[in-house]
Amino acid sequence: MFPRLDVVAACLAASLSVASAQTFRRLGTCPTLGCVIPPDQQDFLPGQEFDIRFEVHAPKNGSEAFNNGVPDEAFTATISKNGGRARSIADFFKQKEPSLEKWTFSWYEDLFAQDAKTPSVVNVASKAYRRVALYEPGTYTVTLKYYSGKTTTAEWTVRPLATRKKAKNVIFFIGDGMTTNMITAARLLAHKTINGKYQTLLSLDDFPVLGHQMTHSVDTFITDSANSASALYTGHKSTVNALGVYADSSPDQFDDPKVETIVELLARIWGSAWGAVSTAFIADATPTALTGHSRARGQYGVLVDQALNGVRNYSWTKTYGPDAYFGGGAEQFIAGSGSYQGKDYYAEFANKGYSVSLNKTSLLAAPNNKKALGIFCRSNLPVWIDRHIFTDNLEINNDPSGANKSAKDLPGLKEMTLKAIDVLHNRGSKEGFFLMSEAASIDKQMHALDYDRALGDLLELDDTVRTTIEKLKSLRILDDTLIIVSADHGHGFDVFGSSDTKYFNAQTDERAKRKAIGVYEESGLSQYTEPKPGVSYGTGANFPLNWDPRYVIAAGLGANPDHREAYGVGSTPRTPASGRNGEYYVNDKDRPNGFVVNGTLPPSAGQGVHSLTDVPVYARGPCQETFGGTYSNIDVFYKIANCLGLAQGRNVTEGLRKRRN
Amino acid sequence: MFPRLDVVAACLAASLSVASAQTFRRLGTCPTLGCVIPPDQQDFLPGQEFDIRFEVHAPKNGSEAFNNGVPDEAFTATISKNGGRARSIADFFKQKEPSLEKWTFSWYEDLFAQDAKTPSVVNVASKAYRRVALYEPGTYTVTLKYYSGKTTTAEWTVRPLATRKKAKNVIFFIGDGMTTNMITAARLLAHKTINGKYQTLLSLDDFPVLGHQMTHSVDTFITDSANSASALYTGHKSTVNALGVYADSSPDQFDDPKVETIVELLARIWGSAWGAVSTAFIADATPTALTGHSRARGQYGVLVDQALNGVRNYSWTKTYGPDAYFGGGAEQFIAGSGSYQGKDYYAEFANKGYSVSLNKTSLLAAPNNKKALGIFCRSNLPVWIDRHIFTDNLEINNDPSGANKSAKDLPGLKEMTLKAIDVLHNRGSKEGFFLMSEAASIDKQMHALDYDRALGDLLELDDTVRTTIEKLKSLRILDDTLIIVSADHGHGFDVFGSSDTKYFNAQTDERAKRKAIGVYEESGLSQYTEPKPGVSYGTGANFPLNWDPRYVIAAGLGANPDHREAYGVGSTPRTPASGRNGEYYVNDKDRPNGFVVNGTLPPSAGQGVHSLTDVPVYARGPCQETFGGTYSNIDVFYKIANCLGLAQGRNVTEGLRKRRN
Repeated sequence: MFPRLDVVAACLAASLSVASAQTFRRLGTCPTLGCVIPPDQQDFLPGQEFDIRFEVHAPKNGSEAFNNGVPDEAFTATISKNGGRARSIADFFKQKEPSLEKWTFSWYEDLFAQDAKTPSVVNVASKAYRRVALYEPGTYTVTLKYYSGKTTTAEWTVRPLATRKKAKNVIFFIGDGMTTNMITAARLLAHKTINGKYQTLLSLDDFPVLGHQMTHSVDTFITDSANSASALYTGHKSTVNALGVYADSSPDQFDDPKVETIVELLARIWGSAWGAVSTAFIADATPTALTGHSRARGQYGVLVDQALNGVRNYSWTKTYGPDAYFGGGAEQFIAGSGSYQGKDYYAEFANKGYSVSLNKTSLLAAPNNKKALGIFCRSNLPVWIDRHIFTDNLEINNDPSGANKSAKDLPGLKEMTLKAIDVLHNRGSKEGFFLMSEAASIDKQMHALDYDRALGDLLELDDTVRTTIEKLKSLRILDDTLIIVSADHGHGFDVFGSSDTKYFNAQTDERAKRKAIGVYEESGLSQYTEPKPGVSYGTGANFPLNWDPRYVIAAGLGANPDHREAYGVGSTPRTPASGRNGEYYVNDKDRPNGFVVNGTLPPSAGQGVHSLTDVPVYARGPCQETFGGTYSNIDVFYKIANCLGLAQGRNVTEGLRKRRN
Repeated sequence: MFPRLDVVAACLAASLSVASAQTFRRLGTCPTLGCVIPPDQQDFLPGQEFDIRFEVHAPKNGSEAFNNGVPDEAFTATISKNGGRARSIADFFKQKEPSLEKWTFSWYEDLFAQDAKTPSVVNVASKAYRRVALYEPGTYTVTLKYYSGKTTTAEWTVRPLATRKKAKNVIFFIGDGMTTNMITAARLLAHKTINGKYQTLLSLDDFPVLGHQMTHSVDTFITDSANSASALYTGHKSTVNALGVYADSSPDQFDDPKVETIVELLARIWGSAWGAVSTAFIADATPTALTGHSRARGQYGVLVDQALNGVRNYSWTKTYGPDAYFGGGAEQFIAGSGSYQGKDYYAEFANKGYSVSLNKTSLLAAPNNKKALGIFCRSNLPVWIDRHIFTDNLEINNDPSGANKSAKDLPGLKEMTLKAIDVLHNRGSKEGFFLMSEAASIDKQMHALDYDRALGDLLELDDTVRTTIEKLKSLRILDDTLIIVSADHGHGFDVFGSSDTKYFNAQTDERAKRKAIGVYEESGLSQYTEPKPGVSYGTGANFPLNWDPRYVIAAGLGANPDHREAYGVGSTPRTPASGRNGEYYVNDKDRPNGFVVNGTLPPSAGQGVHSLTDVPVYARGPCQETFGGTYSNIDVFYKIANCLGLAQGRNVTEGLRKRRN
């Protein structure tokens, strides 16, 4: 029988459209009309739980239109190990055959289609197999058959077993958006050179092992913090905005196929203590990717509930809440529109045995043997520079109780991290602990092109790492603790010279102002490390002596909205562009004495954006030697999992039992 | 006796001016009026030869005016080891007291002074002690006394001895201006991902050890290629534009205090073969810093003579010329205005026993047992993209003979490097070899904001590294060879998304064009790795299949002249800005369909500039384990010197004797 001509034409169109679709895609992990999720080329930890979804797509219109928009409901799927016998998914995983699901979604094939408002509509037939695991290392081939003759194949690799624990504790510091370029700049601001020799260095500079991780996502080369944190915590890259799941095309933001995270594994297998600290909303992507399962990182309320209670709407791995959970974002805890089901999450945590701290004084006094929640303000924590230098900026309505007043008694990343270590060390006992500590505003301030505020928070991270090492030494657990410092992605920031602010401000012409910028031999030395008469912040040896010298760094991102540059620290946080009808223009109130730089981003962007660059990984402690060289962000998960003996050949639940006792 | 009031006032002024001078400095390594060069805090290899200069400054006018502009000619200087007895310099180094030198120089205290054309004039008294060495590890204190009571102290550290050779050969690849960000972008262009997993990787990605080196110079935080190459080759940071010397204030560009380089040490101690390969003028900074001693990198003619004949105008370490010397820049070889003393340097090299190749065919046929010179064009070598993709751009008047025709039979970095290895392996024999191979146009094309051409040359470097490893394996010397791949400094480049060129070009409004840029989930995947019907370059597996896809990378530097951006490869090399009366504006002929981006650099800058970022160091082979972590660029020299056993406790000249036989 000859193929129908319309099918041939549709296939041809489909293959062409696959080659050109980029800005928008039908489904990133599914270039054909049959989708296997997790897709081809994915890696797994032995014993790690996950969901499988199959989708068969029938585009009704557009370049891929097929089968009059009727998806094949009779698709079948099999799995085979190391080229062996193919068995049905239900049979292989000893599950009942799930019921068929159906939905419709639409997408734009490119920007022209978006401008013309001509979406392509796709009907879908699907099945999801929940909570399965592969226990034996090897190569698995999953085959989806559909439209009588079409096939989509996915090859999955289950990595070798590592059942022995080599590190008792792991502390994973994440400088959100932090690159090597920023680390270099932070060093320049806080540490003095004499004739080219640094007299002191960053704490990071002392780490013996350095690696680079590639941050791209499963379906795009630029990632976001949800997606990238998920890769670091699960060993599975995902889609922008997704955490703990592969994104499917269904309308439900919580039914996407899940993957087990490092803290879920650690809880189930060893029963260790775990904690998360962040200077952002504690519901932000980097902390909630430890526990959250949704393709929508913006679902803050649910994500906090998932951190405390685990996934409740699907069959999923059992776990327990954090032993220490410190950050900002009181909006998800105060009963009301920001919290899950309007409930009081301070009470929800307290009912589960947590101490609850709403300021630094209370945090420091909290008992170390009890689970601890600390939420210190609404929104993100004010940044280090505003907490220490421009304290007027703390006069905002952000009290974590919801009262109309300022949160002033604020801990920083250091205080939160040190307290978390006290609690986790105490509660983890011989099972040890896992702590993630995030310097979130490196990223947030780089988005705002506020280079100084970003670097201030980077220096706070470095100071926290330094103090953490001392703390672990004093607790006699330094040698048992793997410390990793890395990032989730970058921004294209770099310093290219200095700017003479006095000369800059004395010029009225915008081009003449640019003459203030000194490059190469005119860049000079850092003046941030020179004492200035009358200026004393009391912020210690590892921070600038003067944040506002005459000669400041000239720096930039390359990926900007329209904005003005004047260089040098601003006394208030920066908003480089302002929006009118969804289009952003120079914010006339920001750096009013500066010169205009036209943006390089879509006019709808009011901020700088993430970049492609590999980010550094610093390692010290047990297993440090495995972190050298260049690797994918998912490998960071496998390296940590390997060091914690999380690859298990059977369904281990001893951890949960230990914690019950 | 009370101090004279004018002295107090002058001292106060001096200390104030020291705090504010940045764009210009009197002498970067000399904040006081007495200069010890090498200055305070410098490190030395035991036995490494160097010069010492003392200067006493008497500013006649300006904020530092002192002693009516009369410098103290009766200054004295001493040196002591590990806090022991101070001895005069002449006595300690067993030299005759040198004669006094005197000169005058001027500088601007800041941009206001420059605009007002009011230089500060300084009279100088000085002495230079030539060709000394410190053989014993330890701390040395050099004290300069002047103006009856003033003192300048320099502490020098001679690092521990390492007399044993651990690697027979060293190959040092330098990607000029190459950063981690660029390496990440190059990987994206040439290597395909499927669902987030790279199917192939860069050769650099396979290196087991990764480090970061800090590139700042002795007196500025932004460096150039002379200064930074000098740090890598000598263990001494210098000043922008200087190579193999510390910069002094004298008018003579060749009398500055010298430091012995790695090839001079290797020649003197072991008699190994050495070579340099570059895609730039062979007289450019990165290759000539191996042998050159001048604070003026632009003295191309002299620098080529120094490479062949060593330093001839001062008492200096004896050495021999390169065994393989391949690159561009025929201007310094053709008898005429570009060559030293107008001489024919093809003949000068030939007279010293070199084979001379002026094209690839001749290069490949050159005997491996003879010293080899290869100069393949005037100016820099055409870049990889123009040699392979846009070959029309080779139609330029650049024949290395000086004839008015095009050099077409051109080797690339790979051919030059592989041939150099053949010659060096043959000639180095049991003493081994040192080869520096430079991908120069990564930097040169980043200066021109020509991202694609820069990344093309980065991929050529990676391909050369890959082939070099295979070559060393086939010669059975891979295990004896330390391979380092690093850079000398960065540019603030990063990729932040994709651009839909079809949509971009269909818009007429500059803001609307920016809507073509896709960030985050709209960045998509690399289309450079997708085959395009009818496009086949035959450039092999490790290069893009399509340099000109519909969706291209959107990238930038952040440090730019006024220019237009359109993204995507240009069919001709890029000139982003054009100058009128020393002021640069958008070049209307460059990317005429793009949108304007205002510059962030002084209007006198027509190109992008270098940046601050630490750059990566990749290592494999003997001593690889010493290259992990973060360190200064001078440490790269000490690590290599350590691996080659170049730290010697006596004046070793066996290498020179071996080569004579």
